[in-house]
Amino acid sequence: MQQSFNSSLLENAVTELSKLPGIGRKTALRLALHLLRREPEEAEALGASIIDMRRNISYCTRCHNISEQSVCPICSDPRRDAHTVCVVENVKDVITIESTHSHHGLYHVLGGLISPIDGVSPSDLEIDSLVERVEKEDIREVILALSPTIEGDTTNYYIFRKLASTPVKVTMLARGLSIGNELEYADELTLGRSIQNRVLFSDTFNSK
Amino acid sequence: MQQSFNSSLLENAVTELSKLPGIGRKTALRLALHLLRREPEEAEALGASIIDMRRNISYCTRCHNISEQSVCPICSDPRRDAHTVCVVENVKDVITIESTHSHHGLYHVLGGLISPIDGVSPSDLEIDSLVERVEKEDIREVILALSPTIEGDTTNYYIFRKLASTPVKVTMLARGLSIGNELEYADELTLGRSIQNRVLFSDTFNSK
Repeated sequence: MQQSFNSSLLENAVTELSKLPGIGRKTALRLALHLLRREPEEAEALGASIIDMRRNISYCTRCHNISEQSVCPICSDPRRDAHTVCVVENVKDVITIESTHSHHGLYHVLGGLISPIDGVSPSDLEIDSLVERVEKEDIREVILALSPTIEGDTTNYYIFRKLASTPVKVTMLARGLSIGNELEYADELTLGRSIQNRVLFSDTFNSK
Repeated sequence: MQQSFNSSLLENAVTELSKLPGIGRKTALRLALHLLRREPEEAEALGASIIDMRRNISYCTRCHNISEQSVCPICSDPRRDAHTVCVVENVKDVITIESTHSHHGLYHVLGGLISPIDGVSPSDLEIDSLVERVEKEDIREVILALSPTIEGDTTNYYIFRKLASTPVKVTMLARGLSIGNELEYADELTLGRSIQNRVLFSDTFNSK
């Protein structure tokens, strides 16, 4: 039911907040009333941070990660291994992989996955620019770090084919048991793959 | 784990968003990245609506509901019954009760409930101003529409005693079975109360 708020200002804030994903009108109203109860500075800071972020964040011209400069801090960091590029679906995946501290190379953000159902074709993604980077930069390994879904696998295969004519080594993330999960709860596909891709036990001493 | 965002603008927006109730850093990041993907106008509108609301909404001097003027649209509506005042805990309850279209009188927003545990005493609430309204305005009925909780009941009783010396009629919301709920799922207190407060079946024809 559409509720009347007796205030176009409140109405407007609720409408804008409820455009956010996962936030309905009830939650939006709760958030708006929360902001009304707090100090004015808090609402000012929130509003300004949203506007400021959207106005001033752009994308790295090299890897298409978000950036405040034309080349992002990762791409311009001389300590990072410029020979290894990790291909991810989106900006969030860069943040997730960075938090593992396991990748010391650069990134390439595709901006999505190939999905004919959702109307996303290779030309909508940063795949040509990846091929161009591989041809121009001294890249020795491309790590495909896409989700293990149909769309991810399709995109993996498409990129693999596109790079087949170059000498670059194409790898992908290991698929296997989740650490900490019990064996009996692993799905059969994952378990089967983890048997095929079993590793030498002695090799596991070096990692971690 | 604290994640690095490679952008102080994104970091700032995520920090501000995660101050909202029920929104953690993960959700805040999802919201921020959503805004980055959408048209700039959408983020501008959201940010501006929050700032605008907080700057310009104040409270009705008569009923303490939110208002853009010194007296709110409900208080200043001549079609509403000024002899009946519905006492509610907060602004949200005004919106909820308005959406039932069952109350045609005015409101009085307490701004909370008496709760010694949370350190909320009667003087923190708009109770004295309610008594003053009852003494000065031509109010014939005060409807106590507070939550059926210990705090609500305490506040109900406190207000009832405060108004005992005035000739005003003090009523409270009926407590009974929720419409649409099966009898076997009603709690015993509610069911017991609904038996004590049973109504003449013929009377139900007039309502609704």
